[in-house]
Amino acid sequence: MLVKNTWYVAGMATDCSRKPLARTFLNEKVVLFRTHDGHAVALEDRCCHRLAPLSLGDVEDAGIRCRYHGMVFNASGACVEIPGQEQIPPGMCVRRFPLVERHGLLWIWMGDPARANPDDIVDELWNGAPEWRTDSGYIHYQANYQLIVDNLLDFTHLAWVHPTTLGTDSAASLKPVIERDTTGTGKLTITRWYLNDDMSNLHKGVAKFEGKADRWQIYQWSPPALLRMDTGSAPTGTGAPEGRRVPEAVQFRHTSIQTPETETTSHYWFCQARNFDLDDEALTEKIYQGVVVAFEEDRTMIEAQQKILSQVPDRPMVPIAADAGLNQGRWLLDRLLKAENGGTAP
Amino acid sequence: MLVKNTWYVAGMATDCSRKPLARTFLNEKVVLFRTHDGHAVALEDRCCHRLAPLSLGDVEDAGIRCRYHGMVFNASGACVEIPGQEQIPPGMCVRRFPLVERHGLLWIWMGDPARANPDDIVDELWNGAPEWRTDSGYIHYQANYQLIVDNLLDFTHLAWVHPTTLGTDSAASLKPVIERDTTGTGKLTITRWYLNDDMSNLHKGVAKFEGKADRWQIYQWSPPALLRMDTGSAPTGTGAPEGRRVPEAVQFRHTSIQTPETETTSHYWFCQARNFDLDDEALTEKIYQGVVVAFEEDRTMIEAQQKILSQVPDRPMVPIAADAGLNQGRWLLDRLLKAENGGTAP
Amino acid sequence: MLVKNTWYVAGMATDCSRKPLARTFLNEKVVLFRTHDGHAVALEDRCCHRLAPLSLGDVEDAGIRCRYHGMVFNASGACVEIPGQEQIPPGMCVRRFPLVERHGLLWIWMGDPARANPDDIVDELWNGAPEWRTDSGYIHYQANYQLIVDNLLDFTHLAWVHPTTLGTDSAASLKPVIERDTTGTGKLTITRWYLNDDMSNLHKGVAKFEGKADRWQIYQWSPPALLRMDTGSAPTGTGAPEGRRVPEAVQFRHTSIQTPETETTSHYWFCQARNFDLDDEALTEKIYQGVVVAFEEDRTMIEAQQKILSQVPDRPMVPIAADAGLNQGRWLLDRLLKAENGGTAP
Ligand code: FES
Ligand code: FES
Ligand code: FES
Repeated sequence: MLVKNTWYVAGMATDCSRKPLARTFLNEKVVLFRTHDGHAVALEDRCCHRLAPLSLGDVEDAGIRCRYHGMVFNASGACVEIPGQEQIPPGMCVRRFPLVERHGLLWIWMGDPARANPDDIVDELWNGAPEWRTDSGYIHYQANYQLIVDNLLDFTHLAWVHPTTLGTDSAASLKPVIERDTTGTGKLTITRWYLNDDMSNLHKGVAKFEGKADRWQIYQWSPPALLRMDTGSAPTGTGAPEGRRVPEAVQFRHTSIQTPETETTSHYWFCQARNFDLDDEALTEKIYQGVVVAFEEDRTMIEAQQKILSQVPDRPMVPIAADAGLNQGRWLLDRLLKAENGGTAP
Repeated sequence: MLVKNTWYVAGMATDCSRKPLARTFLNEKVVLFRTHDGHAVALEDRCCHRLAPLSLGDVEDAGIRCRYHGMVFNASGACVEIPGQEQIPPGMCVRRFPLVERHGLLWIWMGDPARANPDDIVDELWNGAPEWRTDSGYIHYQANYQLIVDNLLDFTHLAWVHPTTLGTDSAASLKPVIERDTTGTGKLTITRWYLNDDMSNLHKGVAKFEGKADRWQIYQWSPPALLRMDTGSAPTGTGAPEGRRVPEAVQFRHTSIQTPETETTSHYWFCQARNFDLDDEALTEKIYQGVVVAFEEDRTMIEAQQKILSQVPDRPMVPIAADAGLNQGRWLLDRLLKAENGGTAP
Repeated sequence: MLVKNTWYVAGMATDCSRKPLARTFLNEKVVLFRTHDGHAVALEDRCCHRLAPLSLGDVEDAGIRCRYHGMVFNASGACVEIPGQEQIPPGMCVRRFPLVERHGLLWIWMGDPARANPDDIVDELWNGAPEWRTDSGYIHYQANYQLIVDNLLDFTHLAWVHPTTLGTDSAASLKPVIERDTTGTGKLTITRWYLNDDMSNLHKGVAKFEGKADRWQIYQWSPPALLRMDTGSAPTGTGAPEGRRVPEAVQFRHTSIQTPETETTSHYWFCQARNFDLDDEALTEKIYQGVVVAFEEDRTMIEAQQKILSQVPDRPMVPIAADAGLNQGRWLLDRLLKAENGGTAP
């Protein structure tokens, strides 16, 4: 079961052009393209005539032309041309999905279009802020998106999955502070402070100071699948826990977003931003590669977990203390699913 | 549902030799080989002993020997030798499929053998006619054969799928004349005249004249899946529509034949013949390559269509005016299926 | 249906080290590793926490640590550490499979652990005997293990599948003597004597004599899937059938063992031993390559047979005289299955 009535990320804004792009979201084939006036559009990627994919077609001024028999559909999905036929019968159309371009991302609504309100799109992303250098990437996962969410809501795994990149020994036993926003769709704020601790290798590699640090991971997770994180390391005792960020502190802003592709595959977009050495391209590349290595460590583990789940879907999981965050996340997702399905459990 | 009681093409006659050849038709594994006297034979590709494929075996004078435990089956499928055993129990055999060699092709009957009448094999193919230079090819399709038939019965797609090869803009809106033979199993004759029109790139590339042409595509389609076409371009006004073919006219004869392999895969054989420059091998190759490029354009579209159909098999298709030919084709196929299944709809 | 309450081979003893090894037996994912004291252990390859594979983990002194969130499981499968949590709830464990190291092999019990008695492990394997030079190998099969057993219990196939390696023409019609041990789980002894016959190419290639030979294949098969064979060639008339093995005789001892991986895939381990030229490494390699070529001939046939069986699982097989051995083998396996399932047929 997947939550439908929510805004999912369909891609980076720059992914979308006059060249049609085929992507699947929530098991639905979608074609993304820009109209002649630059407007991003998402239509069902199936011509209503004989089901050829519109993504093999061409974008013209009037819309997208199916390359099989030449029918044209406009940005609303309505058919506006049938070659060799004068009349266009009423109702000749393909499904349109609400699509909004914001924060450099494309947001798609796969559920009931009547409920799509762009005001509900998560705000306050760091992408594109001028004082930050942002880099972004994409990972395709052979796993259900909830397994990725589980991973993000429980950072004890940093100690074991990422010992040489993002993690430190201390990550295994640190108890995070978890706060749940009881308004709206719910939102978790997870705060992890590692005082007078070692830096992770990734921070060590870019820090302008040596020795012990006060480190933090403070992140907000919005269901179903969006995480915004403030993370960094400051020299021990320079006031980071009290809110003071000295200039030599390493500071990152991170965004991780998942969109279900199918029940067992997912899209994963991430943005990594830093507020230091903004023009150092070698540093940008170095940080990006470090993130990619760490994210591959996650992917290896999560895809292995999915394989097992697909083989023994009914095998129970046994809870441990570290599950506090992911349990709240799963509870929030279940609540969304229940709300969407008339109050009954999925 | 696939029509069973009909002659399907099993391959080119030259495909079949003393070396056993494994092919699947209508979901059945078949082994094709020639006996010592050159007779082409089709047997079930499963030894009756322990189901090893006979196609891994060897053809001997007495028949085909299973390479697992050495049983031999003759051209009728009857077991004629069991190593280490004197008696051959009655009924020890594999299924034989009626197979006829005609027009340089092998024709196989997958249905009730009692109904297999070689007189029903479609006649008047151009293959091998002395005044024509024939070249042939094979394509394997990841699609149900009816999707290929649909494509062949609606040439409006030439404008969109083949704009740089077979098609012209005029193909999109030209209304063909469609005649149905109401005798026998039915046969459609589709006539398309493009008067004083541009030639397709394929014709331009071989024509001995320039400028506008009277072009034609006149083809007969016999259910379930055989098309014979007379196609060409003559200089405008030289009498082609009235039946006069001036020497500088470009003339082709084309045959396209599909055989279901499974419900979602198909064999496709084609023959392309011309009546000019018969000995120009470079031209033969050039034309062949042009056809291959165009047929790959079809395959890309049709296999994409099949993928969607496999995902949403119940999604309705919406008819348009251009479907006149393919609708008649589907109606004829349905009629064959109903006849085969006791008059009830499949 | 697979027999569960029996000792299967899980690998060569040397396969198992401190580095965890993932293998599947009878559809169950298992992790194999050695503890700090060198003891070989087999656990369920699924952490009880969130089902990550333990085989991605690390072996430490206390046991194997899951690399996802760091739980540790000891050699009994009991959880002995949960990072960030003092108490380990009772029953926190993964399944342990009885594992015994014997004859250089690992033997695993996938059924009811209470019935696992190491005394039931087949004894008298030739592996590692000092007067013999042993070489061993592994093959992965895309086929149910019973198809491999069938193959081993009917050597008429040597004539057809291995004409240039293991087989001779005479293999096709030779009637073996088959004796069934009516005690215990049953055991077949199959004796094949080829008197004054040609040697197989494999024997010819290593024999120190030329001309006709008295050849033998004497093997015991223990259900479900273990074969021990004494095979060789001696110069004709030198007393081999009476039990005299002259020094120039070619003598091999062979072991073939199958373990079901899934219903349609299998593990296959084999050991080949000879009692001549023990230190001739080039000869060892030559013999090994000969065996590998021959075993690939089997694999090609058996995997082709499996493909057909998967397509038409209900297609009956027709018995012939050569099936005597394999029929007894199948009967013994059915009896084991029935005994295991409360006397009812599977
Ligand atoms: S399938 Fe799109 S126009 Fe025919
Ligand atoms: S399977 Fe063909 S002879 Fe045995
Ligand atoms: S899945 Fe093994 S410790 Fe969490």
